[in-house]
Amino acid sequence: MTFKTFFQADAATRLYEQVMDYIQVRIERGEWKEHEKLPSVRRLSEELGVHRLTVFRAYQELKNKDKIYVKDKSGYYVQPANGQKDREPADDPVYGSWLQADNLARIHAIQVDYQFSKSLIDPALLPNRFWAELMVNMFREYPRLPGTYSTVQGDAELREELAAHFSNTGLFHLTADELLITSGGQQAIDVTARTLIRPGDRVLVERPAYGPAMEIFRRQGARLLTADIRPDGYDMERIEQCMRTEKPRLFYINPTFHNPTGFTVPAAQRKLLPELAERYGCVILEDDSTYDIHFGYKTPPPVFTYATTGHVIYIRSYSKYVAPGLRIAAVACRGDHLPGLLAAKSLTDNGSPLLNQKLFLQYFRSPRMQQHLEKLCTALQLRKEAMERCLADSGWTWHSPAGGLNLWVQLPRQVDMRRFLQAALAQSVSFIPGHVFDPLGSAENPHIRLSYPFANEGQIREGMQRLLSVYESIH
Amino acid sequence: MTFKTFFQADAATRLYEQVMDYIQVRIERGEWKEHEKLPSVRRLSEELGVHRLTVFRAYQELKNKDKIYVKDKSGYYVQPANGQKDREPADDPVYGSWLQADNLARIHAIQVDYQFSKSLIDPALLPNRFWAELMVNMFREYPRLPGTYSTVQGDAELREELAAHFSNTGLFHLTADELLITSGGQQAIDVTARTLIRPGDRVLVERPAYGPAMEIFRRQGARLLTADIRPDGYDMERIEQCMRTEKPRLFYINPTFHNPTGFTVPAAQRKLLPELAERYGCVILEDDSTYDIHFGYKTPPPVFTYATTGHVIYIRSYSKYVAPGLRIAAVACRGDHLPGLLAAKSLTDNGSPLLNQKLFLQYFRSPRMQQHLEKLCTALQLRKEAMERCLADSGWTWHSPAGGLNLWVQLPRQVDMRRFLQAALAQSVSFIPGHVFDPLGSAENPHIRLSYPFANEGQIREGMQRLLSVYESIH
Repeated sequence: MTFKTFFQADAATRLYEQVMDYIQVRIERGEWKEHEKLPSVRRLSEELGVHRLTVFRAYQELKNKDKIYVKDKSGYYVQPANGQKDREPADDPVYGSWLQADNLARIHAIQVDYQFSKSLIDPALLPNRFWAELMVNMFREYPRLPGTYSTVQGDAELREELAAHFSNTGLFHLTADELLITSGGQQAIDVTARTLIRPGDRVLVERPAYGPAMEIFRRQGARLLTADIRPDGYDMERIEQCMRTEKPRLFYINPTFHNPTGFTVPAAQRKLLPELAERYGCVILEDDSTYDIHFGYKTPPPVFTYATTGHVIYIRSYSKYVAPGLRIAAVACRGDHLPGLLAAKSLTDNGSPLLNQKLFLQYFRSPRMQQHLEKLCTALQLRKEAMERCLADSGWTWHSPAGGLNLWVQLPRQVDMRRFLQAALAQSVSFIPGHVFDPLGSAENPHIRLSYPFANEGQIREGMQRLLSVYESIH
Repeated sequence: MTFKTFFQADAATRLYEQVMDYIQVRIERGEWKEHEKLPSVRRLSEELGVHRLTVFRAYQELKNKDKIYVKDKSGYYVQPANGQKDREPADDPVYGSWLQADNLARIHAIQVDYQFSKSLIDPALLPNRFWAELMVNMFREYPRLPGTYSTVQGDAELREELAAHFSNTGLFHLTADELLITSGGQQAIDVTARTLIRPGDRVLVERPAYGPAMEIFRRQGARLLTADIRPDGYDMERIEQCMRTEKPRLFYINPTFHNPTGFTVPAAQRKLLPELAERYGCVILEDDSTYDIHFGYKTPPPVFTYATTGHVIYIRSYSKYVAPGLRIAAVACRGDHLPGLLAAKSLTDNGSPLLNQKLFLQYFRSPRMQQHLEKLCTALQLRKEAMERCLADSGWTWHSPAGGLNLWVQLPRQVDMRRFLQAALAQSVSFIPGHVFDPLGSAENPHIRLSYPFANEGQIREGMQRLLSVYESIH
């Protein structure tokens, strides 16, 4: 059963947008070719069963957007694709529309010496040495591993181990049956979105927010609402009002060492959020992708800790800071949502590869896991501090994060961000312009995201010097 | 941009169905609770911006389906969920709605001694011995593997190797850039569906067809059309007529050792299909999940071999018959579709785990691969023949497949399939009732699918004897 978005209180407004979509899809697919004459207003209105004025308005809007043109009063015609190229050049790594889903990928794909755009751990900081040994042990223990499918829910041993870990660290108690293993945190977001969101649903996201998550929600047909995240957390009144009046289906949050800002939502707000979600029938999707990366800071418990009902779904990523190549994340979920998540996971890939789960399990239950995390946190703190020292006299401002992988830096004056990025890339330095994280897509964002975990301290010093020079030069 | 399904020539018919969906979704989500009074026809018609008769018809239909009820002429009320339980008992492993996406999973989950429902290779036939050795070699060659992300498109070395393989075996020539690695064939179908199908699109599928694929298309909002597959292939006139008049976006085919029937579409039809697809703007999605499992039979080249444009997308599964736990499939795709597939794959999981790709590569390029396949085909042919011998005097009929994993058996008389399956499971024998594969969902299907690759020859003989006895007993 597909749920349609058509039925809205403001149906009149939305109807012409749907007609626009209808026309644009046909043009994009090449069913209606460049310079081909479009159906008359009357004919299309009959075909679609909508009022002529609705079709007329759709044609007008498409004309204004240079998607179609009018000729000799004889009708509407398809505008060639290059008619819009000036605004969204395909070769521009940043300013292409978010709808193209690959802005970040495009920036990341550029090879630079000073890599501040990737929010990824430097491979040199990962525990590479032990894997071969673990692998041999693993094969001794499970000789038929490559021949064995995982269950859709994920390896039971790994789920048991994770459930015990959550319990032992005092975060929350749940059973292995309340966990689902996914191929990384991104897939966990995707599976949840596909389970819970139907076209037309509203989804509340933080502003700024993690780009790929927004793109997943949009593709699922969601309309995004925003709640600012600030150094001291959320505006809880705004969130409650939004939940009450807009009835979002989902609130996607990343409250611990938030990406991109590094902010951490205080415990008092964490306690309130599940109550609000329950009261207004919203589901909170808590993405805890860097919970373990903290700098001598007592991280507050996840929002999920305070959930007594099924209104919070919790994603904990692990592979990112242990073995990114393994792609392991866990979804914790009480209540009724798990069967739906399992169905979506089953259709997506029938279960994550068992080999990876078993190998991660070998590492996770060894004492090396905790040792590695401690060393990693120290190394990342040093990199963060190195980057902060470079910015000390720059006039650039930021809130020093207590954990995570990024600095969210406000530039002292508005610059042409596109020029700034291109000039920086020309100097082999990369960063992410702030607007990429803006759900509202405002291009006037004075922030940039600088990630410190990929480059070593020497590279950070040299790269930041270059970046500051580039910034000065583009006055 | 979401494309809406609203606009159809038969908008009047479809509109009330959308209102039905709207209402049902709210009931399912618990926004409208059991025995709660629903909005009046007038109020809902205003809220949704549709005609009152449309809402009225939706309410009437829902009433007929026991989803809502009328009380004292005062209005419509939500029917408690158990009001429909008689028709779709949740504990029935087979007859639950396909919308629940897990019929097959439910049957597979039942532990039986005679496993004829799983279209999976017996782990005893898989090359388990060499993996540990390959793994050690692999770590020598790529010591930092667990710490390395794959690209979204998949490991370049593996894609090079596969491209060379396709070329060397004379099937088709393409470059590594025209291949995408996915986590199994199922994910390949899912990624393609998400890229190409928008709600309301028509998708042509074979009848019968692989259930999870249909479920993926349906969830994507597609409306399914069917083309029968028969021992001698398709009715090409019917397919052409369907493409011409219905303009399906996708034609999903499994033309080689088709699941569930085992039929193979002849070369003459394979040549025609890409032409038809090009002429009518349809994309053929060719699922070649058991191409290498043949019994002394010269398998015709894939449909993709005959494609000169981007109108055929080809999925080749490998892990199933080599190392199911690795989850490796390849999508071959010429033309314009690859960027869209990459964007969808990126949002799904950011790329398949590199470890699995490298491990598969180690095996794939070793001479063991070909040796294993030859042995496997012989073993499966023996199992197939054992099963066929058991059926020789049964009156059950089937077309002996030249490859693949299944017999598609027609029972000599109509039986209550639900009773038959339950009685068989009670005797520890499993199979899949034919209607599970029927896109039209007709319950009156005299076929069953019997898979021979999971049970050994002794189990096949015993299990088939039991199955035939059960069948005789349920007169």
